[in-house]
Amino acid sequence: MEKYVYFFGNGRADGHGTMKDVLGGKGSGLAEMTNAGLPVPPGFTIATSACLAYFDNGNRLPEAITSQTDESLQRLEELLGQKLGDAQTPLLVSVRSGAKFSMPGMMDTILNLGMNDKVVEVIAQKTGNARFAYDSYRRFIQMFGNVVLEISKDHFEHILDVQKKKRRTKLDTDLTADDFKQVIMGYKHLIRKATGKDFPQDPRIQLKMSIEAVFRSWNNPRAITYRRMNKIPDNLGTAVNVQTMVFGNMGETSGTGVGFTRNPATGEKQFYGEFLMNAQGEDVVAGIRTPVPITELDKIMPDVFKQLREITSRLEHHYKDVQDFEFTIQEGKLYMLQTRTGKRTGKAAVTIAVDLVGEGIITREEALMRVEPEQLNQLLHPILDESKPLKFIAKGLPASPGAAVGKVVFTAEDAVEKGKGDPVILVRAETVPDDIHGMEVAAGILTSRGGMTSHAAVVTRGMGKCCVAGCSEADVDAKRKILRIGANVIKEGDWISLDGSTGRVILGKANTLLPDPSSGDFATFMKWADDVRELGVRANADIPRDALVARKFGAAGIGLCRTEHMFFAEERLPHVQRMIMACKDTTDAKEAARYQKERRAALAKLLPMQRKDFFGLFKAMDGLPVTIRTLDPPLHEFLPKREELMVQIATLEAKGTRSSKLPQLKKMLTVVEGLHEFNPMLGLRGCRLGIMYPEITEMQARAIFEAAAQCKQKGIEAKPEVMIPLVGDVKELALQKEIVNRVAREVFEKKGVKVDYLVGTMIELPAAALSAAEIAQEAEFFSFGTNDLTQTTFGLSRDDCGKIINSYVKQKIWAADPFAVLDPKRVGRLVKLGTSEGRKTRSNLKVGICGEHGGDPSSIAVCAEAGLNYVSCSPYRVPIARLAAAQAALNQAKESTPQEAYTTA
Amino acid sequence: MEKYVYFFGNGRADGHGTMKDVLGGKGSGLAEMTNAGLPVPPGFTIATSACLAYFDNGNRLPEAITSQTDESLQRLEELLGQKLGDAQTPLLVSVRSGAKFSMPGMMDTILNLGMNDKVVEVIAQKTGNARFAYDSYRRFIQMFGNVVLEISKDHFEHILDVQKKKRRTKLDTDLTADDFKQVIMGYKHLIRKATGKDFPQDPRIQLKMSIEAVFRSWNNPRAITYRRMNKIPDNLGTAVNVQTMVFGNMGETSGTGVGFTRNPATGEKQFYGEFLMNAQGEDVVAGIRTPVPITELDKIMPDVFKQLREITSRLEHHYKDVQDFEFTIQEGKLYMLQTRTGKRTGKAAVTIAVDLVGEGIITREEALMRVEPEQLNQLLHPILDESKPLKFIAKGLPASPGAAVGKVVFTAEDAVEKGKGDPVILVRAETVPDDIHGMEVAAGILTSRGGMTSHAAVVTRGMGKCCVAGCSEADVDAKRKILRIGANVIKEGDWISLDGSTGRVILGKANTLLPDPSSGDFATFMKWADDVRELGVRANADIPRDALVARKFGAAGIGLCRTEHMFFAEERLPHVQRMIMACKDTTDAKEAARYQKERRAALAKLLPMQRKDFFGLFKAMDGLPVTIRTLDPPLHEFLPKREELMVQIATLEAKGTRSSKLPQLKKMLTVVEGLHEFNPMLGLRGCRLGIMYPEITEMQARAIFEAAAQCKQKGIEAKPEVMIPLVGDVKELALQKEIVNRVAREVFEKKGVKVDYLVGTMIELPAAALSAAEIAQEAEFFSFGTNDLTQTTFGLSRDDCGKIINSYVKQKIWAADPFAVLDPKRVGRLVKLGTSEGRKTRSNLKVGICGEHGGDPSSIAVCAEAGLNYVSCSPYRVPIARLAAAQAALNQAKESTPQEAYTTA
Repeated sequence: MEKYVYFFGNGRADGHGTMKDVLGGKGSGLAEMTNAGLPVPPGFTIATSACLAYFDNGNRLPEAITSQTDESLQRLEELLGQKLGDAQTPLLVSVRSGAKFSMPGMMDTILNLGMNDKVVEVIAQKTGNARFAYDSYRRFIQMFGNVVLEISKDHFEHILDVQKKKRRTKLDTDLTADDFKQVIMGYKHLIRKATGKDFPQDPRIQLKMSIEAVFRSWNNPRAITYRRMNKIPDNLGTAVNVQTMVFGNMGETSGTGVGFTRNPATGEKQFYGEFLMNAQGEDVVAGIRTPVPITELDKIMPDVFKQLREITSRLEHHYKDVQDFEFTIQEGKLYMLQTRTGKRTGKAAVTIAVDLVGEGIITREEALMRVEPEQLNQLLHPILDESKPLKFIAKGLPASPGAAVGKVVFTAEDAVEKGKGDPVILVRAETVPDDIHGMEVAAGILTSRGGMTSHAAVVTRGMGKCCVAGCSEADVDAKRKILRIGANVIKEGDWISLDGSTGRVILGKANTLLPDPSSGDFATFMKWADDVRELGVRANADIPRDALVARKFGAAGIGLCRTEHMFFAEERLPHVQRMIMACKDTTDAKEAARYQKERRAALAKLLPMQRKDFFGLFKAMDGLPVTIRTLDPPLHEFLPKREELMVQIATLEAKGTRSSKLPQLKKMLTVVEGLHEFNPMLGLRGCRLGIMYPEITEMQARAIFEAAAQCKQKGIEAKPEVMIPLVGDVKELALQKEIVNRVAREVFEKKGVKVDYLVGTMIELPAAALSAAEIAQEAEFFSFGTNDLTQTTFGLSRDDCGKIINSYVKQKIWAADPFAVLDPKRVGRLVKLGTSEGRKTRSNLKVGICGEHGGDPSSIAVCAEAGLNYVSCSPYRVPIARLAAAQAALNQAKESTPQEAYTTA
Repeated sequence: MEKYVYFFGNGRADGHGTMKDVLGGKGSGLAEMTNAGLPVPPGFTIATSACLAYFDNGNRLPEAITSQTDESLQRLEELLGQKLGDAQTPLLVSVRSGAKFSMPGMMDTILNLGMNDKVVEVIAQKTGNARFAYDSYRRFIQMFGNVVLEISKDHFEHILDVQKKKRRTKLDTDLTADDFKQVIMGYKHLIRKATGKDFPQDPRIQLKMSIEAVFRSWNNPRAITYRRMNKIPDNLGTAVNVQTMVFGNMGETSGTGVGFTRNPATGEKQFYGEFLMNAQGEDVVAGIRTPVPITELDKIMPDVFKQLREITSRLEHHYKDVQDFEFTIQEGKLYMLQTRTGKRTGKAAVTIAVDLVGEGIITREEALMRVEPEQLNQLLHPILDESKPLKFIAKGLPASPGAAVGKVVFTAEDAVEKGKGDPVILVRAETVPDDIHGMEVAAGILTSRGGMTSHAAVVTRGMGKCCVAGCSEADVDAKRKILRIGANVIKEGDWISLDGSTGRVILGKANTLLPDPSSGDFATFMKWADDVRELGVRANADIPRDALVARKFGAAGIGLCRTEHMFFAEERLPHVQRMIMACKDTTDAKEAARYQKERRAALAKLLPMQRKDFFGLFKAMDGLPVTIRTLDPPLHEFLPKREELMVQIATLEAKGTRSSKLPQLKKMLTVVEGLHEFNPMLGLRGCRLGIMYPEITEMQARAIFEAAAQCKQKGIEAKPEVMIPLVGDVKELALQKEIVNRVAREVFEKKGVKVDYLVGTMIELPAAALSAAEIAQEAEFFSFGTNDLTQTTFGLSRDDCGKIINSYVKQKIWAADPFAVLDPKRVGRLVKLGTSEGRKTRSNLKVGICGEHGGDPSSIAVCAEAGLNYVSCSPYRVPIARLAAAQAALNQAKESTPQEAYTTA
């Protein structure tokens, strides 16, 4: 028969510390501590498999579990010489949840189970402490009523408050045994009224109902939400720990507390925690009495304190990590109730990892696995000072991390204007490329629409600037310059604060803290990561400033420079527009030649500017490769919006006023209409532009190679990698490559220098991945554009997808937003296929990824598995990617070597 | 050494009839006829490989080819006792192109080569016919000048005309030897002036230059265009045939002609052709003298006629197909110059194939391979009567076959209004779903934008209605109701005619002919096709009328019923819009419930209408499966256009007039804005609708099952197959299937009947194909939606792609429009992968295709190869698909059994 129940007690446990899957975190910790001879109250753990069996059985406990539970209970009773519900030596137990991954406070706990009208009297008599006995009983009824019978806590609290008022006190400790008897009567009455049944006096029924209630709590709404937020699978189930009660509320030599072996906020090696004498665990967190710093225990009970330090220090060595522990002192005797790996901030994580290596407790490789890559974010961006009270008014998507504080503005122009004084927060329904200048000066961006890969999100992450996107509660009225969030009406100039790491919006002016990313521990830690990782890390950067940031953060080159961002500058746009106005089709060869000449003339104006752009990038990245993508976006992005023109024209016409603007607007509308597409994402963009209008590619290639030649002459090492976007067929690439190579030859000949360069392509269409073997005949490198690849693989527009993705993640159709986390099953499959088939054609094919996924740790693992050479991500995510790449390498190494057997300390 | 040159003559040839690849069609025919002992003037064929070697060698003949040519020439001279350029017995030859696939008139021919100033005199003397000699010489110079030296024909014709004018005649035959001498002087002068060199007198130089010119003609623009139109690969090259001249212009016992062994227009078994006495081949086609029907030859030269009939009849038996032959009679002796398979109309193809089977010449299987599936189109649609002169004014895409004649209208409303009288042609820049009612009444549709799968194209093909789409020369001014094509200004009410099979637009009222698709031969032929094919053929049909057509054409069911087309009807749209107005997001549970209630109320109004739709379809398809796709398009398609609303509002506001419409318009705009998407193709559509608003799926399922139950009660056998669109993840399908199954249970329980049904999914996203193994856990059938699959695989919107596709096909990036011909490399790969992985999960998975490709023969071959169960296409393409499926089965069988060795007759 399957083993569902694991006993622990008397220095021996059925399970042990590596059985988190089966016993949950708490259960495996209790087993491990028992085996290590630590003072743990005995009990038994009902495995997570029992939880799943309970659900499978239509929310009823299968017979096998009930009988194994009974056996273990009997063994516990025999060990202690106590019996559940016994009139002489009654046993009291706690019933606690404990899942594989810690979900603090999400699931339910019941203490003092075994109490009933008789047992309470026995306890009162045996302990000579009636107050303690009745307090414990009323606590049990309250928890049972709330957790098992689902009666709101408020109702119980109300009854307690009434009694306190009667006694004119605010403290529980002022209540007497008789007071609690009154309270218990009230509780029982409440339960009868609410459920139609009496509070169950039979402890075995109490136990069965409690176990089931804890199992059910796996699926309570807050547990589901927590799992979704923390990407914990829903199908794990929770274990239940039934453990002999020990009491911290048995008088002044009793107490209870929680602690950490090191400071979880800073990482300092400092015994950290708090406790309360004469209290049960819940009192410490409830906040009614203020807990005392744990170091104070040394003064009150030095022996116990010494024992606790010894035990927790042993635990830290045993688990090789900071421990978060719970203890209870019952009449001077210390009991350990829980130990688990302590949660910590990013800063603490790095410091602790480096310290543990220094202390010889863990290896560098282990240290690297101890820090969540995302946690490094906290070391790179300003963070909210949460020590002061903050007024949270909404929550959007954590689109770009960091905290920002500023005065609200509603247009890019206002941002530029008002941004000269106080910092500003740019608030938009959604941002468009036109807003770039405003985004550059703003301290942070808030949008009401758009997802994690919306324009605002992508651009701000590139800038390392705080952004909260898709905040659907925010109603942005740009016309009237009003932002409404619930009842809050925020006007231009009002202060708000944003937390881009969590998506929270704060009313007013919060404080921010600036961490120091160049600290010794951080630098040490990142060095270790670089030593083990095999995946290169580049950055996506369009301008020298970003390139320098990327280089500072350890980027080994630029993986994506989007040249179109350079086209939006004020002095360039007119030339770009003039070029576009000449992108007309005609079958008349003469006319076609005239249009081309006009395009060339406009492009000639852009050439020196682009050359300067590229020179700046090459200079910033001196000696490192710079991947430059040729023009990618649909041309109409550079023109006024179609519907806006239509409205302007209609308005002027309706007014009947003669405006000289009208013919001009109409001419522009004709051009815009000609370029109008129903689905621009699937239209005339990417290499299609260069194929229809080769002179665009020609100009860009010329700018690249002239800049590179200029560098050479100045002793700067430029390493251009020209990247052709949106290729679906090898012939597209061949045609574009021909142009690039020809221009390179021309420039090098003219300048009398030669610069090495590569020509490669984005793999961002399923068609490209599926014909990678052919494309690699021409491509000297591949770069997976996983934004577009995800869009086309799923048939999902990232500009329009917010609602759908939210709903899909909520309905559990997807584990995560596929634009944030690379989908391994479909998109990842194409990445692997494209890489392996491309390399079959060209064994030394360099393969990278430059989609937004390049900065996401779990996506980086997929890239490592696919054998990519590098990932490219926003400058501010470079350290995260470096660590994720190191972890991926360590995981791969682990998979390929047999794992060591677990040995207890 | 590689053999480049193949000799034929004296009853023996180096090559034979199966060597089309090497010798081209003409060369292999000459070899075969020679081997069969037919009277063929001897000569040699320079293989297609020589043409490719010529190009590879930088357009110069490699030494190996020159030397092999010299050898064969010597052999020819020895055989005939004549010598090229000899002053006693000069040899004259023709130099003709001949590719693997016939490209009539596309490449070049030179006759009478070997003539020079001396030879012409020898010939004049030997034949005693100076006029013949000088006529032959001037013809040679003219052809050489035009083909080899690239001087325009007009210049030569002008010189000839001048001479004719001098002689006051219009006929060549009135010119004398002296006249031709004058002409020859003029020609030589022209050549010297144009090229700076004299006309070459050395016949060996003439030959070398001519061979090279013929090779070059493979790449002349008209040959390239022809190949593109006929999907002939560009890398085959042409062979060159050098053959002893025979002369049909040696007097009244000489002549030349062309013919067919059967009537190529009707297929009747009737000796068919025409000839001219005292003429060379070019005169027959030039149209200066009117050729005589071939049967007249019986009267003039009965023996020759008898011999010709015998020979051609032997050829037909030998080649087992209708022969298109050329012959020359030189002084009473018959020579065969060419034989090849005769081109024929669709009607003739079927009749000939059936007759040849009847005559025991070919098997049914061979007969099936003899008809191009596309040719059947001609038997199914009205065709243009081309016997009358027609004024072609433009050419668009042949979007939907058939001919149509009508008066021009510019709006759907006008079509309905004016269509009550004379037939109308609806002319639009592009059609939208709103135009459906106008399209239904129009005789044909002409659009200036959009490709082969634009809205107009898809809808008209479904209706079996003529459509010319993407006619970019047409400038449609719907406001002024004017259509401009070049200099033609066509106003509302003017007559035009369309040929949807070729894309031609004709000014005025053409005649059309109605073929009879139920003719005996056609029925016989299609029966044979059905006997051998393994692929089922279904039709895409949304309404009973189309379903009945499909059934008549042999469809085995409906493979795609698009339910959204039903939503556009006038009496339904208000309910659809009311439903959409309630598709709002809110986090307030109460509000959400209110919106859902509102949606349900609107859907309840649609339920009886949908039920009636489905009942009609089930009834029409009684006993056959009907695949119904749940709602697919983005919701905003059912609402007014965003920009139109904006313009209306701006106009009203600018005018300042108080309009009660304004608030209403603004409310609508808010809804439309809420639904606005940048890329609707990648937005909230397909199963995403049913997942966000499950009550839509619920209503549709209810309508389907209630209709099916109703059928059962009336003795009609309904076989519904519910198809969920745009699935990318198995969980989407699982959620929608749950709804469908639940509603089915409810309906069956209530009605007390049970109907078998299937639930399956479209595979139209790369994500779906890539996770087909998982999806097949839920799907009982797959239907590849290759329109969307092509869009997403290539990242190419079919609504916007016209320009790009044209340019890509022109630049040879793609072999064909991937929306017309299924791309085998990428999209086809996904089809194969999805099918095989789906069947690994569910071995009996039914797999079909319902994209537009389902009616395209080469795409059907890909489907057959992938092992699909059926294809589904427009009703009017069902016979084409049936034949294509038969051919695919025959080709597959051929590939899997060793091919028989060729045996000569």
